[in-house]
Amino acid sequence: MAGTSSTMSGGVTTPRGFRAAGVSAGIKAKEGSLDLALLVSDAPARAAAVFTTNRALAAPVVVSREHLARSGGTVRAIIVNSGCANACTGEEGMQVARDMAAETARLLGCPVEQVLVASTGVIGVALPMEKIRGGLPLALRALGADQGPSAARAIMTTDPFPKEAATTISIAGRDVAIGGMAKGSGMIEPMLATMLAFVTTDAMVPKALLDRALGEAVNDTFNAITVDGECSTNDCVMLLANGASGASVDEATYGAFVAGLTTVCRELALGIVRGGEGATKLITVRVTGAASSGEARRAAKAIANSPLVKTAIHGGDPNWGRLIAVAGRAGVAFELSRAAVTIGSTVLFKDGRPYDEAAPEAAEYLKGTDLTVSVHLGAGNLSSTVWTCDLSAEYVRINADYRT
Amino acid sequence: MAGTSSTMSGGVTTPRGFRAAGVSAGIKAKEGSLDLALLVSDAPARAAAVFTTNRALAAPVVVSREHLARSGGTVRAIIVNSGCANACTGEEGMQVARDMAAETARLLGCPVEQVLVASTGVIGVALPMEKIRGGLPLALRALGADQGPSAARAIMTTDPFPKEAATTISIAGRDVAIGGMAKGSGMIEPMLATMLAFVTTDAMVPKALLDRALGEAVNDTFNAITVDGECSTNDCVMLLANGASGASVDEATYGAFVAGLTTVCRELALGIVRGGEGATKLITVRVTGAASSGEARRAAKAIANSPLVKTAIHGGDPNWGRLIAVAGRAGVAFELSRAAVTIGSTVLFKDGRPYDEAAPEAAEYLKGTDLTVSVHLGAGNLSSTVWTCDLSAEYVRINADYRT
Repeated sequence: MAGTSSTMSGGVTTPRGFRAAGVSAGIKAKEGSLDLALLVSDAPARAAAVFTTNRALAAPVVVSREHLARSGGTVRAIIVNSGCANACTGEEGMQVARDMAAETARLLGCPVEQVLVASTGVIGVALPMEKIRGGLPLALRALGADQGPSAARAIMTTDPFPKEAATTISIAGRDVAIGGMAKGSGMIEPMLATMLAFVTTDAMVPKALLDRALGEAVNDTFNAITVDGECSTNDCVMLLANGASGASVDEATYGAFVAGLTTVCRELALGIVRGGEGATKLITVRVTGAASSGEARRAAKAIANSPLVKTAIHGGDPNWGRLIAVAGRAGVAFELSRAAVTIGSTVLFKDGRPYDEAAPEAAEYLKGTDLTVSVHLGAGNLSSTVWTCDLSAEYVRINADYRT
Repeated sequence: MAGTSSTMSGGVTTPRGFRAAGVSAGIKAKEGSLDLALLVSDAPARAAAVFTTNRALAAPVVVSREHLARSGGTVRAIIVNSGCANACTGEEGMQVARDMAAETARLLGCPVEQVLVASTGVIGVALPMEKIRGGLPLALRALGADQGPSAARAIMTTDPFPKEAATTISIAGRDVAIGGMAKGSGMIEPMLATMLAFVTTDAMVPKALLDRALGEAVNDTFNAITVDGECSTNDCVMLLANGASGASVDEATYGAFVAGLTTVCRELALGIVRGGEGATKLITVRVTGAASSGEARRAAKAIANSPLVKTAIHGGDPNWGRLIAVAGRAGVAFELSRAAVTIGSTVLFKDGRPYDEAAPEAAEYLKGTDLTVSVHLGAGNLSSTVWTCDLSAEYVRINADYRT
């Protein structure tokens, strides 16, 4: 059953017992822009979350971590604003993050530690609490089981399109839904920082299994994508499980649950890469023949972040030498005489010998927009897959001209 | 005396007892292009070298390492070709690298292990030995104590200008000259891989001191520059000391020698960055307040390689949030409440508080072409300086269109 689930249309309100809203609180400069999202579970939900490893933690990350610890992982709501990251904003910013949670809790009538907070947008600018305070009642009134799409739009910054995904799995004969929404991609939206993802399920999942499932799913999805190798001050992935389906996940059904969760997270993660700044191609980087899984991932990330690889693919150039050179400098076991490079299904280098006669075939393949490049390290039998996008002049234009 | 030496015009033939040549051997497609350089010490010289850490080692790197080990660090000549990297070329490539050294040794009448070899150019293409064989007698005839500039041109690939530097220091009352030439910058010339540097001195330096001096100088210069974070299959820095000045470096004069060597290496290294693909600005990245020197360097490299930082500076945007965000994700001790960002001499963030009112001043400064950005990590008192260039749409154009 695991691995066979596929996404359907839907999002955070596809699982039963979740309502959402996306409203305009006037945080973004453009009048009427959606910039405040509220996600509510009708009953207290079990929650798991992973946060950025960046040491310049934004205030909402600090507050959400505290609340998860204090509530023992029980959450009623998540309040998210876009347009301002509330990062590098000192003690005042901490107070605003606390006030956002407190005001949401007051309106919902739940303990403050059952509210998580997230922000995305410009770093170093104060988040005006009065706008949040004004927007919250609007969000509360707009809450609906059909408002997942509004919430998905309200968390966007420079995202070219909203990212939503959902799937259904069967647990002990009952249908369980998993849904999610996401925005951004690491520092792909610079200053408008941040990758945020929110996933819901109506399964009942014990806290320990929920944490484990989120860790596994994130490792193979959100942690396996890269646009420019950056990691923002505000990144987080939050998962709520409210049990509204009446189905309980246990060790026996854990595999099915992780598979469904991974399906939803992968769809969201690939959406982030496809929407990367200036991106014209989705690139799957597959590394095989590694001495360990960690080394496979490290080499794959090095390739996926290499500006030389990303520009070559942008230009449709089957430049296998760059793939070999990056694998060779990735700091992992690598044996040139047994290494190989494949673009699509075309072998361009194998066992120390180039196959440049195949370059035209590979160049033709690179005209596509959904591409796979594979590097065999010749040092073992472990592998890893990561996803990235190409690097275009448009990326430079967006990032050089941002703010000026 | 140390640290006061500055560069003067000159290069590898500025020290006494060295001759060089740059000729056309027909390796590069364009007729008459200089592509074969020969550097000869009239007397056997002490040699030290550092090579790429890339595991996909090019054949000339393998051969030069072998020769240095076999000769105990005694070298008469270095033969260098451009236009072909002789990398990923299997056993045939190894044979060509060996033959290049052997033929040079035969013509000079010295043991083969006293000849080092280097190549730079396209990866995965066979280096035609008959062209090297045809070019070598031309190079021998052209050898001259005034031919450093020709050699510096003959090692270029897509470099916009040749890189040469020289200085004079005083050792025990005698003038000692140090000179050098360099090309490229890591993988800045993709496929046309490689940073190569060759440094000469007429000091007499014991092998142990020579190795130590090169390691120190390279650490603060060639290892402190980055254009795109890549490291090629062919990178090397070679240093020859022939004693022709009659001055000997010992522990007492080691400091002065390292200072002079560092001056020459820094000038060459900065020339490489200035000539980076698409570069319009030289950026000095200074990290202070680190818990260790290693962490300072790591954070500085992370900032210097960040496409977000490089594009912001390209666009003249004093985007201090990106500098903080990169420092925070660099994997080093970092304390946001004590951190600071300075662009030029303008403080934009300090002790957890933004100083955005100073942004116009910083933006004005960023219009320059020789810039310094500083990040204080707030975690200790150690520091590091690295150099990089901005990231322009021109970089993408060069690298996307290369080969196609």
